Amino acid sequence: MRGAVLYAPGDVRFEERADPKIINATDALIRTAATCVCGSDLWDYRGINPVEQPTPFGHEYVGIVEEVGSEVTAVKPGQFVIGSFFASDNTCANCRNGYQTNCLHREFVGAEGCQAEKIRIPLADGTLVATPEQPAEEHIPSLLACSDVMGTGWYAAVAAEVRPGDTVAVVGDGAVGLCAVIAARELGAERIIAMSRHEPRQKLAREFGATDIVAERGEEGIARIKEMTGGIGADRVLECVGTQESMRQALPSTRPGGHVGFVGVPHGVALDGQELFYSHVGLRGGPAPVRAFLPDLIDRVLSGRINPGKVFDLTLPLEQVADAYQAMDERRAIKALLMP
Amino acid sequence: MRGAVLYAPGDVRFEERADPKIINATDALIRTAATCVCGSDLWDYRGINPVEQPTPFGHEYVGIVEEVGSEVTAVKPGQFVIGSFFASDNTCANCRNGYQTNCLHREFVGAEGCQAEKIRIPLADGTLVATPEQPAEEHIPSLLACSDVMGTGWYAAVAAEVRPGDTVAVVGDGAVGLCAVIAARELGAERIIAMSRHEPRQKLAREFGATDIVAERGEEGIARIKEMTGGIGADRVLECVGTQESMRQALPSTRPGGHVGFVGVPHGVALDGQELFYSHVGLRGGPAPVRAFLPDLIDRVLSGRINPGKVFDLTLPLEQVADAYQAMDERRAIKALLMP
Repeated sequence: MRGAVLYAPGDVRFEERADPKIINATDALIRTAATCVCGSDLWDYRGINPVEQPTPFGHEYVGIVEEVGSEVTAVKPGQFVIGSFFASDNTCANCRNGYQTNCLHREFVGAEGCQAEKIRIPLADGTLVATPEQPAEEHIPSLLACSDVMGTGWYAAVAAEVRPGDTVAVVGDGAVGLCAVIAARELGAERIIAMSRHEPRQKLAREFGATDIVAERGEEGIARIKEMTGGIGADRVLECVGTQESMRQALPSTRPGGHVGFVGVPHGVALDGQELFYSHVGLRGGPAPVRAFLPDLIDRVLSGRINPGKVFDLTLPLEQVADAYQAMDERRAIKALLMP
Repeated sequence: MRGAVLYAPGDVRFEERADPKIINATDALIRTAATCVCGSDLWDYRGINPVEQPTPFGHEYVGIVEEVGSEVTAVKPGQFVIGSFFASDNTCANCRNGYQTNCLHREFVGAEGCQAEKIRIPLADGTLVATPEQPAEEHIPSLLACSDVMGTGWYAAVAAEVRPGDTVAVVGDGAVGLCAVIAARELGAERIIAMSRHEPRQKLAREFGATDIVAERGEEGIARIKEMTGGIGADRVLECVGTQESMRQALPSTRPGGHVGFVGVPHGVALDGQELFYSHVGLRGGPAPVRAFLPDLIDRVLSGRINPGKVFDLTLPLEQVADAYQAMDERRAIKALLMP
């Protein structure tokens, strides 16, 4: 089969690789129906994370089960499935607490690269969720979005404890930030402020439920949020970038007693204990436990309530994966869908 | 009147000072019924916080109202009152959200020193809570405890979102940590692990509701907590010290998806964003909005449900305030009560 391999910053190749095989009795093999490039892949593509050797890439996927190990009982060949980027047993204490990305037996599904024609999914019973039937073509992008960006945006809102009536600000207008707007709306936020300077993204944010757009950043951005919230800040702020600047945007934009959910993988983010203390702001982040949300998110997609697949504004054949990286790196695309 | 003044590290003097007066129409004057020394006073007494000039000290108090400004309507002369160390209007947006220590008009009551015979309380209507009648002598220490340490321990548990059935670990066996044990018990925690190496404090922690004691610290302490919690950590950890060591004790002792409430004023505490991210631990701290909890805490004291006054293991006449500081500095006393 063929798949994407990152050789060095800026150098993604689509090449012949060994077919994945069932290794453990709890594995499943899937034939990829759709995959995509994640904002977090760009950390490596841009050389911010070191690339030490040719590395298979990608961690988002939907597909058709081809084969299952002898212990797999929850999914079977022929089913259309969605899973998280972390495989989880869904039975350990952390899974039962709803933090499947901290499963005591977790494995990173992306380790073997999901931007590929076939994927091995460890711990298939605890990781994959099958749709009731083969989904319509039109639902595939949104189902794929659930495997990471929609699940991650959802977790941002859950981690920030968004409640009905809240004013929510979203920092970051990438695919995750845009999906976080959907999540805030679905969880009942009354006012949703998307921080964005890019017209097409502002438009999509509004379509997803944003009631206000703030184009200012830094101190001006904070001042603008405070001005809109009676001088105190937003009830909840969803930090969907992962830089020191975005965290410095999020915390002071939150009111005392409010909450920041942070889902951008932090790169060089340091927090001052005393500043956090006097802010009275609550903070929770982490890799989203997508598995916990999948059944609900799949329902919302199939019933037409949410359409996160709109974040894909570029669709390419999987073999053009290098173009997909380049388009996202140059911000010509919000997110690129890849069809094998 | 007479009151305590900190001249330099280790140099507390009890001396004649000007009587406080009504300055604003929203002020009240109280005659101190009891006051005390706070663990946070020791940061200054020990020279960790700089002492730049002779400074009146103390911020915990209960007393009898002597005089009120023309706009004060909620309390009247002769009433026994308790208030927080921060004066708050209790009407602004932050107060309405339950964060009175972030009141838009807050004033630090301790600015003029509460280890004194008389105290001016700004924003009296929003700050003071009167007891239904003159309290019995035996309740005074517990009512005094509510003005800071019990309120702060309570907030640690609220900030950590303690719920019935939880396993809670408390880092710090000072008066706040011990009161946090009471709070965890009152909020329904099933298992309460007090981290303490001091036998008298362990004993009081057990009396307050601790079900387990962990004497180990650092990596050993973390390992012990994990061992007691199926390998994952406590549901909630209450950090009641404020040092980098205590935060480093608290965070890794918390399970993924758990929560740390931190109420020790942070001194040199830095948090790594990526570490916090992968831990999935929620975090909220701050100066406790004691005012929010006072009516409830006063009820619990007067009904005999809680007896936080037991943290006072030394009672001295107010004029011996210097001895009180010394005893606490040398850890001969958990907390010293001062009677004018």
